[in-house]
Amino acid sequence: MKRLFLIAALVGAAPALADEGMWTYNNFPSAKVKEKFGFDPSQAWLDKVRLSSARMAGGCSASFVSPNGLVMTNHHCARGCIEQLSGAKKDYIANGFYAKTAAEETQCPAMELNQLVQITDVTATLNKATQGLTGKAYNDTLKAKMSELEQTCSAGDAKVRCDVVTLYQGGQYNLYKYRRFQDVRLVMAPEHAIAFFGGDPDNFEFPRYDLDVTFLRVYEDGKPAQMDHYFKWSDKSVKEGDLTFISGHPGRTSRKLTIAELEYQRDVAMPKQLFLMSELRGMVTEFQKRGPEQKRISNNLLFGVENGLKAIKGRLEALQDKTFFAQKVAAEQELRKKVESNPEMKKKYGAAWDEIAKAEAQFVHVRKDLAYMEGGSGLSSSLFSIAKTLVRASEELPKENGERLREYSQAGLPALQANLFSQAPIYPELEILRLSFGLTKMREELGSNHPFVKKVLGKESPDKLAARLVKGTKLCVLKDVKGSKVCDVSVRKSLFDGGKAAIAASKDPMIQLALLVDGDARTIRKHVEENIDAVIKKNSELVAQAKFDTYGTNQYPDATFTLRLSYGSVKGYMEDGKQVAPITQMAGTFEHATGEDPFALPPSWLKSEKLIDGTTAMNMVTTNDIIGGNSGSPVINKDGEIVGLVFDGNIQSLGGEYGFDEASNRAVSVHSDAIIESLKKIYGATRVLEELRPGSTHVPPAKANPAG
Amino acid sequence: MKRLFLIAALVGAAPALADEGMWTYNNFPSAKVKEKFGFDPSQAWLDKVRLSSARMAGGCSASFVSPNGLVMTNHHCARGCIEQLSGAKKDYIANGFYAKTAAEETQCPAMELNQLVQITDVTATLNKATQGLTGKAYNDTLKAKMSELEQTCSAGDAKVRCDVVTLYQGGQYNLYKYRRFQDVRLVMAPEHAIAFFGGDPDNFEFPRYDLDVTFLRVYEDGKPAQMDHYFKWSDKSVKEGDLTFISGHPGRTSRKLTIAELEYQRDVAMPKQLFLMSELRGMVTEFQKRGPEQKRISNNLLFGVENGLKAIKGRLEALQDKTFFAQKVAAEQELRKKVESNPEMKKKYGAAWDEIAKAEAQFVHVRKDLAYMEGGSGLSSSLFSIAKTLVRASEELPKENGERLREYSQAGLPALQANLFSQAPIYPELEILRLSFGLTKMREELGSNHPFVKKVLGKESPDKLAARLVKGTKLCVLKDVKGSKVCDVSVRKSLFDGGKAAIAASKDPMIQLALLVDGDARTIRKHVEENIDAVIKKNSELVAQAKFDTYGTNQYPDATFTLRLSYGSVKGYMEDGKQVAPITQMAGTFEHATGEDPFALPPSWLKSEKLIDGTTAMNMVTTNDIIGGNSGSPVINKDGEIVGLVFDGNIQSLGGEYGFDEASNRAVSVHSDAIIESLKKIYGATRVLEELRPGSTHVPPAKANPAG
Repeated sequence: MKRLFLIAALVGAAPALADEGMWTYNNFPSAKVKEKFGFDPSQAWLDKVRLSSARMAGGCSASFVSPNGLVMTNHHCARGCIEQLSGAKKDYIANGFYAKTAAEETQCPAMELNQLVQITDVTATLNKATQGLTGKAYNDTLKAKMSELEQTCSAGDAKVRCDVVTLYQGGQYNLYKYRRFQDVRLVMAPEHAIAFFGGDPDNFEFPRYDLDVTFLRVYEDGKPAQMDHYFKWSDKSVKEGDLTFISGHPGRTSRKLTIAELEYQRDVAMPKQLFLMSELRGMVTEFQKRGPEQKRISNNLLFGVENGLKAIKGRLEALQDKTFFAQKVAAEQELRKKVESNPEMKKKYGAAWDEIAKAEAQFVHVRKDLAYMEGGSGLSSSLFSIAKTLVRASEELPKENGERLREYSQAGLPALQANLFSQAPIYPELEILRLSFGLTKMREELGSNHPFVKKVLGKESPDKLAARLVKGTKLCVLKDVKGSKVCDVSVRKSLFDGGKAAIAASKDPMIQLALLVDGDARTIRKHVEENIDAVIKKNSELVAQAKFDTYGTNQYPDATFTLRLSYGSVKGYMEDGKQVAPITQMAGTFEHATGEDPFALPPSWLKSEKLIDGTTAMNMVTTNDIIGGNSGSPVINKDGEIVGLVFDGNIQSLGGEYGFDEASNRAVSVHSDAIIESLKKIYGATRVLEELRPGSTHVPPAKANPAG
Repeated sequence: MKRLFLIAALVGAAPALADEGMWTYNNFPSAKVKEKFGFDPSQAWLDKVRLSSARMAGGCSASFVSPNGLVMTNHHCARGCIEQLSGAKKDYIANGFYAKTAAEETQCPAMELNQLVQITDVTATLNKATQGLTGKAYNDTLKAKMSELEQTCSAGDAKVRCDVVTLYQGGQYNLYKYRRFQDVRLVMAPEHAIAFFGGDPDNFEFPRYDLDVTFLRVYEDGKPAQMDHYFKWSDKSVKEGDLTFISGHPGRTSRKLTIAELEYQRDVAMPKQLFLMSELRGMVTEFQKRGPEQKRISNNLLFGVENGLKAIKGRLEALQDKTFFAQKVAAEQELRKKVESNPEMKKKYGAAWDEIAKAEAQFVHVRKDLAYMEGGSGLSSSLFSIAKTLVRASEELPKENGERLREYSQAGLPALQANLFSQAPIYPELEILRLSFGLTKMREELGSNHPFVKKVLGKESPDKLAARLVKGTKLCVLKDVKGSKVCDVSVRKSLFDGGKAAIAASKDPMIQLALLVDGDARTIRKHVEENIDAVIKKNSELVAQAKFDTYGTNQYPDATFTLRLSYGSVKGYMEDGKQVAPITQMAGTFEHATGEDPFALPPSWLKSEKLIDGTTAMNMVTTNDIIGGNSGSPVINKDGEIVGLVFDGNIQSLGGEYGFDEASNRAVSVHSDAIIESLKKIYGATRVLEELRPGSTHVPPAKANPAG
């Protein structure tokens, strides 16, 4: 595949023509959209779209699609829930799920949805607080002030979540206030075989034929939540050339990083991550051969690893592209030259790039320690994470809010507790594999003589230690509830409520390990935060301000898993000298089926082939600027109606981490027509259909499911 | 670990002071050794050392250590044989092996040793033949002339092997004539646990405590081969500061590659290889958990993968070191500037670097096709390789010698047949894993729509196809011989003897697959050989000649798995600011034991701890310049006597692929004293001891084995 990285606008200046940008809702370039597409999104339009959009706390996007709290997202965004609700004898991943009645809608053990209700600019407040500070003082003050703002905002209401969001690498700070939905139930999911048709080989590719959709419902006080704002379903099929908006939560881009930061990503961070993930992939692939239940419980992990591998490889290739990287270097040099030529700017910003480079160079020496002692690379176990959270909560919660580690601040507590007390099952066999793998890597990367390695392993092997810890802990006692496994979390609750005394008295081996390593973990984290992160943050703020001063404020910030709006249109592209059409048809799905996983269609599709209109649009590509985290985002038209559902980007879009190339960077979506056609003719999901398009079905709800 | 790459001499000029160089025997810098160490190796000395050295065709080094054909090498070099001779009930890898009588010495199913008996410079002959030629004509002529020289040299004698060796990237061609030993028997091997004590975590590290030794014996006509030349065992323990020589077969270095070639290695080849190997490592690690027999049959593969991973990661880090790479760039620029400033040189050599760069850029576009269609990345199966060899032999052997693919030339036939008819067992379960893995990668890398992928997979999944092929082929029918599995190779023999007709009539699925893909495989190979390799070869010759013209001929060529001699001394080094002592003691082995693999000592060691003199030297480091392939090389003193056995390099030595840094680059060896002490007190291997040091044992051979 030939990859082009001819970036329209690499520096801060707003792109002139390209459909570039993951725009914040308080800085959307409506004028630009009007100029190119003749449609001028009003503030009311923007507000409505924002309030109809949803964030999935686990790292995806979604949308409200009915007044009764119906939510649409991707199957791969709800996989965790679908898998958790499954058991050896009712495999919803393999067979799909459909709640024929409201009573059958089943709660996801660990899912939270957020709706962005307010954005407030708090840049001035924070800048004033940290003025003149550096290092530890800067870091402590910034952290304390952020926690204070968040606490004031949420005011102890567990239904509210407030985050101070760092935008433009610190050039701007906004306070985002969310309404939280913690009772999320599964309504309808197709079979994995069609949701992820083509599997890893076709992931990030186009043409595609996936029905990567799942419907959920948010509940409040045991009843479907009533939504003032939601997206209606469009009656008109979106076509080539039509204007499209995508409202969602791109997770991260690195378009505004300095060259030193990009070099670190290219030469150290990404290769190391890829080696680790490749090995884990091989291990889990082979683990799946232990048996069907092992396959079932590890599918989600394997999907995540494979998806991540392909995404990171794409990003690495982008940075290894010499022409592209040279453009990045030239853009930085141009900005630095402008700064140098202006005495006032030079004084304020001139040293920032070299300071960041020095901090990056220092980080290389401690990155392994940080990853294995404080990060999750070595003690790579959900059970250990729970133990660590319990140990730290007992230390942190008695402290003043502003003095706590960031993730234990008052505003974040409801989310932390929701996570901590989630009953989502943790399977010992897979957990041992993951932990043993992490311990082996820890010994390999830090060396068998590293004091931390000796402390953790003692005279045990990674396999033996992992097995002893996982089998010995009571942090998840698996029990059967209606044929599904869930964790009994009573031990977690009593340890959390019991605080320091309970933790100290605990004989649980995971708690004891978390206690054993906590001092070392805190030490390395503190070192990095105060001596490296603080330097990078402070100087990144300066670089951002230099860009504002030089190129103006009509820019979008790098993605930060906060709500963004992008605009574009349905449009094909050239690949290897051939034109790729922007829309595929349902008939193509059958043509590509081989009968063998991952190209095997589920029985429901095979038996419905003749019922389906093969010319129905299946998947499509649009020029919208998106990135990982946008999965599950609604594609809407200018009337704010659903015309599609983002589920991927093409392989060329992976370089979007570092810059947008309108020539070939494409968002890949399920066309709304395919969703309707399959709900109607394959799944007979009349309840859902009726809710999406009231009056569109003529079958009484009672016998709504001809296929089931 | 801090890594320094301050290279004494990056360009062609001979290093002034450092113990750098893997010298050919016909260009050894005796004068330089004399200047630094006061010893002047004579031609007779060099001849004796050369003839006492041995090459293991599988990719290691060895030495003759008695007049009766006793051979010393590493345990890890003989692993393949030890594993092949083992069975579920007699695991020589785990328990070691000792032939108490001559009759118990057991033939290795697939091992060949070579002794270098003659070197002839054929540069002028080849240059004359290819003068003025380029592309296909250059390639065909070079290949034909090489085959002709080799055939004339070996003259049909199966006991002789002749190779035209390309040195200095084509600056020189030498004809190497070897005496072949194909009957190699296992004499004594310690347990894997002590041979590879510390396992992968300690691999490429120092201090070390490994007894990585194995004794073999070469036979001729069913009797121990009588050797005119062999190394005597030194009576004197080698000590810090002593002069040491290492004679062995470094596999490959890339010190003289151009920047374009190094960049390709750094940015494409090595990362891709590491991703692949990491994944395979994870898979095999988990495969080992299927059971003890699966662990046993896959240990060798896992060792190879882990060893390779660590080695390549070290090399990649070297090339990613900015200071080091800048030195390489500067050296090339210096040479190019000299060439540019001399009109005659400019005309002859000026374009060479850019031509190589262009060819490398082209190669990027076809590397995947080459790797998966002709290379072994996709059809990664020993059984497929055998099928491919049979199919190609039927095509190639009827051709004129000069027109055949290189590996089917007359001179190479004995080695090819030895390989093809080796009875070394191939285990279906592991074979299916390897092949399925390769097929999955092929689909992933080439894409599921690639015509070759479609041709190979059809509508089958990689797992299913791999299982069908491996279970269906008769190219290795496993049978039991004295408790070991071996392949019945009669089908291979009849297909080989039956030629094209037999191949065409074969219903064997591996043969049919090999036939199916052979056209595509040949096409891509031919394309690369004629349009890319030929350009690189031709222009590399020019670069080499430019170096000779500029810096003189007192240089050593890059390693090419041909016999080299390096000099140096026993010497510690600085690491992370601490001095590392050059010699460890046997007592340290016990101190580092944890009881858990890979730090678990075998029972024989545990029960002999008190018998051993703990102050006996165990492992040591020397400044000799070596690289992978040198494993098993003898370390000798100026009297040409054994003082150690190379088994590794330290982690800093991995950058030796691209340049030698005497400050920290070290060869790691088993000290000869540890070999004697353990043969005597742990293994009671009196037969071997008596042969190494006649008269040194006073126990009659009949009750020679107190431990066994």
